[in-house]
Amino acid sequence: MEACLIKAGIVGATGYTGIELLRLLRRHPKVELAFATSEQSRGQTLAETFPTLDETKLIAALDAPLQDVDVVFVCLPHLAAMGEVPRLLAAGARVIDLSADFRIADSSVYKEWYGRSHEAVDLLREAVYGLSEYSRRELRCARLVANPGCYPTATLLGVLPAFEAGVVDTGLPLIIDAKSGLSGAGRSLSLGAHFVEANENLTPYSIGGVHRHVPEIAQGLQNYAKSAVEIVFTPHLVPLTRGMLCTLYLPLKQPASTNAIANIYRERYAGHPFIHVLPADRHASVHHVVRTNHCALSITVVGRTLIVVSAIDNLLKGASGQALQNMNLMFGLGEELGVID
Amino acid sequence: MEACLIKAGIVGATGYTGIELLRLLRRHPKVELAFATSEQSRGQTLAETFPTLDETKLIAALDAPLQDVDVVFVCLPHLAAMGEVPRLLAAGARVIDLSADFRIADSSVYKEWYGRSHEAVDLLREAVYGLSEYSRRELRCARLVANPGCYPTATLLGVLPAFEAGVVDTGLPLIIDAKSGLSGAGRSLSLGAHFVEANENLTPYSIGGVHRHVPEIAQGLQNYAKSAVEIVFTPHLVPLTRGMLCTLYLPLKQPASTNAIANIYRERYAGHPFIHVLPADRHASVHHVVRTNHCALSITVVGRTLIVVSAIDNLLKGASGQALQNMNLMFGLGEELGVID
Amino acid sequence: MEACLIKAGIVGATGYTGIELLRLLRRHPKVELAFATSEQSRGQTLAETFPTLDETKLIAALDAPLQDVDVVFVCLPHLAAMGEVPRLLAAGARVIDLSADFRIADSSVYKEWYGRSHEAVDLLREAVYGLSEYSRRELRCARLVANPGCYPTATLLGVLPAFEAGVVDTGLPLIIDAKSGLSGAGRSLSLGAHFVEANENLTPYSIGGVHRHVPEIAQGLQNYAKSAVEIVFTPHLVPLTRGMLCTLYLPLKQPASTNAIANIYRERYAGHPFIHVLPADRHASVHHVVRTNHCALSITVVGRTLIVVSAIDNLLKGASGQALQNMNLMFGLGEELGVID
Amino acid sequence: MEACLIKAGIVGATGYTGIELLRLLRRHPKVELAFATSEQSRGQTLAETFPTLDETKLIAALDAPLQDVDVVFVCLPHLAAMGEVPRLLAAGARVIDLSADFRIADSSVYKEWYGRSHEAVDLLREAVYGLSEYSRRELRCARLVANPGCYPTATLLGVLPAFEAGVVDTGLPLIIDAKSGLSGAGRSLSLGAHFVEANENLTPYSIGGVHRHVPEIAQGLQNYAKSAVEIVFTPHLVPLTRGMLCTLYLPLKQPASTNAIANIYRERYAGHPFIHVLPADRHASVHHVVRTNHCALSITVVGRTLIVVSAIDNLLKGASGQALQNMNLMFGLGEELGVID
Repeated sequence: MEACLIKAGIVGATGYTGIELLRLLRRHPKVELAFATSEQSRGQTLAETFPTLDETKLIAALDAPLQDVDVVFVCLPHLAAMGEVPRLLAAGARVIDLSADFRIADSSVYKEWYGRSHEAVDLLREAVYGLSEYSRRELRCARLVANPGCYPTATLLGVLPAFEAGVVDTGLPLIIDAKSGLSGAGRSLSLGAHFVEANENLTPYSIGGVHRHVPEIAQGLQNYAKSAVEIVFTPHLVPLTRGMLCTLYLPLKQPASTNAIANIYRERYAGHPFIHVLPADRHASVHHVVRTNHCALSITVVGRTLIVVSAIDNLLKGASGQALQNMNLMFGLGEELGVID
Repeated sequence: MEACLIKAGIVGATGYTGIELLRLLRRHPKVELAFATSEQSRGQTLAETFPTLDETKLIAALDAPLQDVDVVFVCLPHLAAMGEVPRLLAAGARVIDLSADFRIADSSVYKEWYGRSHEAVDLLREAVYGLSEYSRRELRCARLVANPGCYPTATLLGVLPAFEAGVVDTGLPLIIDAKSGLSGAGRSLSLGAHFVEANENLTPYSIGGVHRHVPEIAQGLQNYAKSAVEIVFTPHLVPLTRGMLCTLYLPLKQPASTNAIANIYRERYAGHPFIHVLPADRHASVHHVVRTNHCALSITVVGRTLIVVSAIDNLLKGASGQALQNMNLMFGLGEELGVID
Repeated sequence: MEACLIKAGIVGATGYTGIELLRLLRRHPKVELAFATSEQSRGQTLAETFPTLDETKLIAALDAPLQDVDVVFVCLPHLAAMGEVPRLLAAGARVIDLSADFRIADSSVYKEWYGRSHEAVDLLREAVYGLSEYSRRELRCARLVANPGCYPTATLLGVLPAFEAGVVDTGLPLIIDAKSGLSGAGRSLSLGAHFVEANENLTPYSIGGVHRHVPEIAQGLQNYAKSAVEIVFTPHLVPLTRGMLCTLYLPLKQPASTNAIANIYRERYAGHPFIHVLPADRHASVHHVVRTNHCALSITVVGRTLIVVSAIDNLLKGASGQALQNMNLMFGLGEELGVID
Repeated sequence: MEACLIKAGIVGATGYTGIELLRLLRRHPKVELAFATSEQSRGQTLAETFPTLDETKLIAALDAPLQDVDVVFVCLPHLAAMGEVPRLLAAGARVIDLSADFRIADSSVYKEWYGRSHEAVDLLREAVYGLSEYSRRELRCARLVANPGCYPTATLLGVLPAFEAGVVDTGLPLIIDAKSGLSGAGRSLSLGAHFVEANENLTPYSIGGVHRHVPEIAQGLQNYAKSAVEIVFTPHLVPLTRGMLCTLYLPLKQPASTNAIANIYRERYAGHPFIHVLPADRHASVHHVVRTNHCALSITVVGRTLIVVSAIDNLLKGASGQALQNMNLMFGLGEELGVID
């Protein structure tokens, strides 16, 4: 019956996360697409840009029919999203914001890292940080979900069980060596994202704690595991379209076997269908997870260093897939429903 | 004058390092190619495999005319090389061995890591480890040079100045997060090296101190900087044909400025034309060095962690280019002569 | 109800087409996977090779439980398939064979091109060539379907409407300039399929009417459009994992407008949900169709040459996707059901 | 001796062809770099952009010291080049223009295709079209050389011998199916040149005789082989950084053997060191020629269709390499001198 479908809208449907979400929503058995907005392409149909999609018309955000809409996904850049969200909530929709605007609970930290005062400070407290496996309960009643960044998702899923279990020496830095495909850089024009510049290349960037995902990771460690630790975060651009792999180095309080640590992870993620802790002799790779909402984790201990490899698809578990997983949780549906694998 | 040309031979000319060396030797102004061997392709000309190369005939190693040859480059796999080298030295040639067979000075360590007793133990002591920037003097008179592995080259160039300067806390592990293009895996058939498997993928392997380059790095730290330190080495395969980037995490004894550490590196490598310490705001990338014999280094300090990014071309500075640089040093030529940039 | 599910088996589940089919079958709403065979990986679970797949055990083909199975997909190489198919049919299953073994109706042509006498000549006449858009009716009752090759699928979909309409000058050759990603070469080891050899390369092969898809295309032209024409077929390997694009040059009997020809195509494919004839100013590309079962066609006329660009995903519309589309037609289901887009 | 060095300048040194030329000139034994200009990067050194290059300062074009300069390479976009060239010639330099501005001898054709009246019509007649293998003699005394486009170079080298020999049926169209790497699209920002858009994609463009290289190819056929023929030209973007492969379909007047046609090509290109006509069983590929100034040609005849595959590196034989080859010819040097292989 039409009556029991969730009416969902997308604001900002033609960026990489927006398109991905569109594809997912179109085949979700309990969702009906209410609208899709795009300022640049408004008036065009989806099929005009993507011939195998349908004739849904892209409209301006201000023309979006908000009445009767159950949930709106906001796929705008940060700074733009916080201007849009209050209006959507006021119209009665629940909102899943894929930008960074509602991820940082402390508005002064937000200002420091994003360079502008937050325009909806009152909503910051209400927003639920949507790392699905750690916020299941809060998501159920959430009106506003801040969907996590891709690096924080891969990192937190890979380190939290060890921090929760208290096996990490928090006096030493947590080293995150992260590798991302180019779609993570978005669809806006830049020389570094050009094929000739990125192909056959490998480029670290934002080394040394200056990347905006650092405070988000720190907040996650604090909230979910009550841990404060120095974060050394080194992201690299790798010549692939999608996929992300974080190699995580955690100093252990004392030596432990690979197996003992792996069991901590297996227990933590039992009952979480998207998280796969691989057998001892396998290492997580991008091919394990690309075009799925899964996270593959592999565990190795050498001396007192725990090495966790965490692989996700940056556009799915790192963005639109997790957003849909969150929608499922918000509306009491099965967590996996309609999330492509 | 022909008389003053160095007569050089290549044993194993049709693997990736052999071909690369061939191209370099052909345009080196002081070298005359004496022979090139290939067991599989013997009887064929170079041009039959590579139409733009010349009519040089590939011969069997046993047919190589060793009289009057000044230097032989051995581009065979490990285990095969140690059977060939004594014969070449006995014929009066100097030898640059690109395999791993003469890199490890301690024959019991060799046996442990390479699974077989060394067949030329007496030559192990004589062999000079050819990390050019650290062995200039010894190379001059060397009869046998063990050309370093690609990961050890990128790593040692990136960490040695800090260890020499005594700023590293050797009580904590040295973390090496290494990324390599596929040519590092060589030309033998394997599913993992197939385009469909490697493309759009990112795969860690040999995690946890089990890669054969670990004892080679440890030996280099010991020999050049008198340092013993736990090594955590995580190599990754990245979808590019050539290029290697090592992100190196060194725990400092005490906090230091990025600039102070960078100056240590600049002083150490002054007068070394192939090593580039980048300005403070630049990060080393594969495009900086690919198809050159250069090593680009960038330095960042965060808290008490020194992050060095070291980029090389795995087939040049990580193999054939450094071999030719070593030949130049052995024969008293300019270090850069004929080494492509 | 379980009762109304189609019980489907896969013989040869670990090649690229087999894996693709597995993924599709697992989410098809009317299919229940009965078994999946693999001689090399028997005894292992799917999850052991693909961590995000399930615990289905791979078995030997001879152990496959054929009773009660409705349909078996054969994903073996040619020559191997014809030995397996009769046994499957005898057990009462309908068979969709993805190999070339039952595509060529004339057994002497088969022998000439595949180098061996056909072992099941009597089945050749019965087999229905499964170019879905041209065999809808025959597929309904088919017991054995010969699923078309990738190049013939892209080519025939792109040229048949013009031949059917009688606008092509059959006295001149039909030129097919075809480009395929590497997955088309399959999963067996070969140097040419290695990343280092295929990446940053572009290689024509089997030029001049010697590729085995030539007689298959000729037969399709004869059967569907009663046309005999000289075929000039030039395939190229292109560095992409999946995707195929054929640029087709058809000599017209007389000059025509792009629009007139495009309308012939639009009419022919009205009611065929997977075929998209693009608007006049758009050209078909791999991104239009990759990871879908669609075929994008674009039409341009210059003078008396009709240029049709036909793009498909070689593993979907060119193999496993079309196989599933054919299964839907055979069992009276909606053509698009469970065929991923 | 410094005295006998050719003093060369580059206008527009930071586009892809400019950088390539810089690398070549720096190692050419008879060239001294007089200046390199860049409007955007003026004031910076080469090393600031490319760490392994030297400290040459980039200057504004108007500040270039033209006195005593022997030759200037103009690496500007079309429309910009024609404003610069007269000034350089007036200062006494010989000019090699890599843009399209002086390639089309007929100013009305230029206006039709490039959308603006030519600003230096008087120079159009003087300019020598620099397809090296066909203009050796004219290049010797040329003051202004119009360096050919990449597609015309690959095409003309591949078709001219057959047209000269009179074996082509000029009543039927010449079909050129061309594939180019992304560097051919230049360094300016565009979504289509983004990694995510171009990777794993294959896109035809400018189908149907509307590409600006069509009149250039037509003019070359007219000038060098006195042939007028309809040209059907279909370029495709392929996901590789550099390299170009044109598959050329020529209708023969009468059937001929592959060998007979190949011999026509071998004779034509005897004494031309950069052109390689491959043996009968080999097909030209991008790997044969990438990063060289070579052109690999392979010949196959099927019925009355001659298929020539022509492969070049678009930035070398298709731009900067041929420019340097032309400089060698202009100054009476060996054709191959300093042209990388």
